[in-house]
Amino acid sequence: VATERIITLLTDFGTHDTFVGVMKGVILGIAPAVRIVDLTHAVPAQDVHAAAYHLATAVPYFPEATIHVAVVDPGVGSERHALAVETPRAVFVAPDNGVLSRALDLAPPRRIVRIENTEFMLPRVSTTFHGRDIFAPAAAHLAAGVPLSELGPEIADLVLLSPDAPRVAKDRRIRGRVQHIDRFGNLVTNIPAGVLPPGPCRITAGAAAVDGLSPSYAAAGRGSTVALVGSHGFLEIAVRDGSAAKTLDVHIGDGVNVDPLPPG
Amino acid sequence: VATERIITLLTDFGTHDTFVGVMKGVILGIAPAVRIVDLTHAVPAQDVHAAAYHLATAVPYFPEATIHVAVVDPGVGSERHALAVETPRAVFVAPDNGVLSRALDLAPPRRIVRIENTEFMLPRVSTTFHGRDIFAPAAAHLAAGVPLSELGPEIADLVLLSPDAPRVAKDRRIRGRVQHIDRFGNLVTNIPAGVLPPGPCRITAGAAAVDGLSPSYAAAGRGSTVALVGSHGFLEIAVRDGSAAKTLDVHIGDGVNVDPLPPG
Amino acid sequence: VATERIITLLTDFGTHDTFVGVMKGVILGIAPAVRIVDLTHAVPAQDVHAAAYHLATAVPYFPEATIHVAVVDPGVGSERHALAVETPRAVFVAPDNGVLSRALDLAPPRRIVRIENTEFMLPRVSTTFHGRDIFAPAAAHLAAGVPLSELGPEIADLVLLSPDAPRVAKDRRIRGRVQHIDRFGNLVTNIPAGVLPPGPCRITAGAAAVDGLSPSYAAAGRGSTVALVGSHGFLEIAVRDGSAAKTLDVHIGDGVNVDPLPPG
Repeated sequence: VATERIITLLTDFGTHDTFVGVMKGVILGIAPAVRIVDLTHAVPAQDVHAAAYHLATAVPYFPEATIHVAVVDPGVGSERHALAVETPRAVFVAPDNGVLSRALDLAPPRRIVRIENTEFMLPRVSTTFHGRDIFAPAAAHLAAGVPLSELGPEIADLVLLSPDAPRVAKDRRIRGRVQHIDRFGNLVTNIPAGVLPPGPCRITAGAAAVDGLSPSYAAAGRGSTVALVGSHGFLEIAVRDGSAAKTLDVHIGDGVNVDPLPPG
Repeated sequence: VATERIITLLTDFGTHDTFVGVMKGVILGIAPAVRIVDLTHAVPAQDVHAAAYHLATAVPYFPEATIHVAVVDPGVGSERHALAVETPRAVFVAPDNGVLSRALDLAPPRRIVRIENTEFMLPRVSTTFHGRDIFAPAAAHLAAGVPLSELGPEIADLVLLSPDAPRVAKDRRIRGRVQHIDRFGNLVTNIPAGVLPPGPCRITAGAAAVDGLSPSYAAAGRGSTVALVGSHGFLEIAVRDGSAAKTLDVHIGDGVNVDPLPPG
Repeated sequence: VATERIITLLTDFGTHDTFVGVMKGVILGIAPAVRIVDLTHAVPAQDVHAAAYHLATAVPYFPEATIHVAVVDPGVGSERHALAVETPRAVFVAPDNGVLSRALDLAPPRRIVRIENTEFMLPRVSTTFHGRDIFAPAAAHLAAGVPLSELGPEIADLVLLSPDAPRVAKDRRIRGRVQHIDRFGNLVTNIPAGVLPPGPCRITAGAAAVDGLSPSYAAAGRGSTVALVGSHGFLEIAVRDGSAAKTLDVHIGDGVNVDPLPPG
């Protein structure tokens, strides 16, 4: 028995309207057996950077050949292109606005196609809801076996966001920033575990300074601030049983520094 | 291979409790292979009008024979009836309170049945949660192949909300209203594209006046107010990269006028 | 045709991040045909008591052999154990922190296993997201047919919350408390219908006193306060077409009294 394809949905549509439900209706009308998984629909409206973060951190946990649909689309109705992108691990369907940037860092595109074949769109394409009219049908047709090349012409390039890497100096001082704040108020930085200094270090964010990394949230006393490597592999700053974002008054984009401490 | 039936759920139950999850447990216990899609559970509490809008705008995007369950039910536990309604396109399971009004404008009922057969309800029917005890089991039994007529006696009429159409004068002046505000703050009016004047016009909502229709959100400058035909086919007023509802201080029910402009 | 196993998810992860979506990706990678149902992800952060309530009230509505995953886990990364528990009705996968307490009141455990076999975890186990790295894979492997005993050693005991039963005096005066407030603002007490006095009684919560039980919300006049047996079988206090929590200024944990009234 063939395993059914999975389609994931990542949007800024929220769940107060039926936007997401309608996309699922369109998908199931075309590919009735597909499995649909919501990544999140709470991306801040039109925030392509946040969507790119969410997509990249989720993709590694899905089976190969999963089709990821990411619709955060400030340019809907403009001349921006609609893309289908194949990598060795996954397929992506999204507007050409950089939302795939971080996910493609994990595995570069093998093929990029501009979705232009109206045969694989809804009969009437609105100028305001391409999630329903273009992206959902494209993903569903791919899941149903339509080859990527049928969707439109292959192209060479796509829009990429500028890299969001921290600056790491020769003396291992790191200048990064908060790239995401999660539901618990934990500050997820853009500093991957791999660049952290091997020895003792001081982590600074806003008014808070923490010496050393904790193995887990639970290792800290209630209410104390800890730095640790979070579940997605980035340096994270947390307040045990509280919100680091609120307690430390730190926001997305704020600077986070890591400075090696003299041993002893 | 037969395609599995789809059941959609539209409620005002929110997602902070397990109400919706429990309905799904009941459904899967009766019809294990059915596909369940959430339309939205964020209908304002007991707002039958809002639910009617959401249902009607979502239904056209689902495959034929989809079973739509709409539980916004201020009268739960009273004498209001529980209905199963068949149209040429779909099946509806809902309280008899008008929630189906707009959806049935699209395709009139072929058969209306009052759900009374306790064989197709949970063994114990509460007075406060018919979504779980009556509507979910009815939908699941229909999906599993029980004929509509088994659920109870056929009836001739159901409760309908008064029509929500704009007034269109002979000189094509239109007096409509805001029927929905979406997650982005866009004002969805009750004015269908089909009644808009063919020539130049002025659209007025609160303090805002816009001349002419834009092809898309993206066609407007950042922060400017635009009028356009939205994805559901109604006149919509939006603020590019902002919330029209907040910027213009307009609420659901507020008037929206369309007045033809003298050419040139 | 074998019916596919159901896995339910109950967490405090919210839906603003991709935590839940990622757990589903992990599950479908291991058990592609499983059906996944969200109970709720809006449990207040780290509130094990609330999670225990939600789980216990939802479990009876799911088919036998459903696998319930409950991840409200203030101790993630500490020495607390990860459990898989089998009862005659269901299977539970959860941290050993009491979250299963109320559900196990319904059907006592037949077997308790400490999840320790790394073969059934993700290759890399973080210290902050066991939902993804331990609980989701364990549930998926169980759904795919791995016997409970393979996950780790059988143990005799698990952490249980102290019972949350009301005090019922010989004269049938009841001293209970509010254990949950639902999305409509209804106050769900910890007083099961079975202990209510057979005759007339007065229900008191905060400043409000109600004489007698109503059959349903709809039986009361708009804006009036009613007491009734709610859909989960507990005494509930509601305000018709309003929020009892707001109107009466009552919070979770506040006392609720039931006092028999002299007949006549």
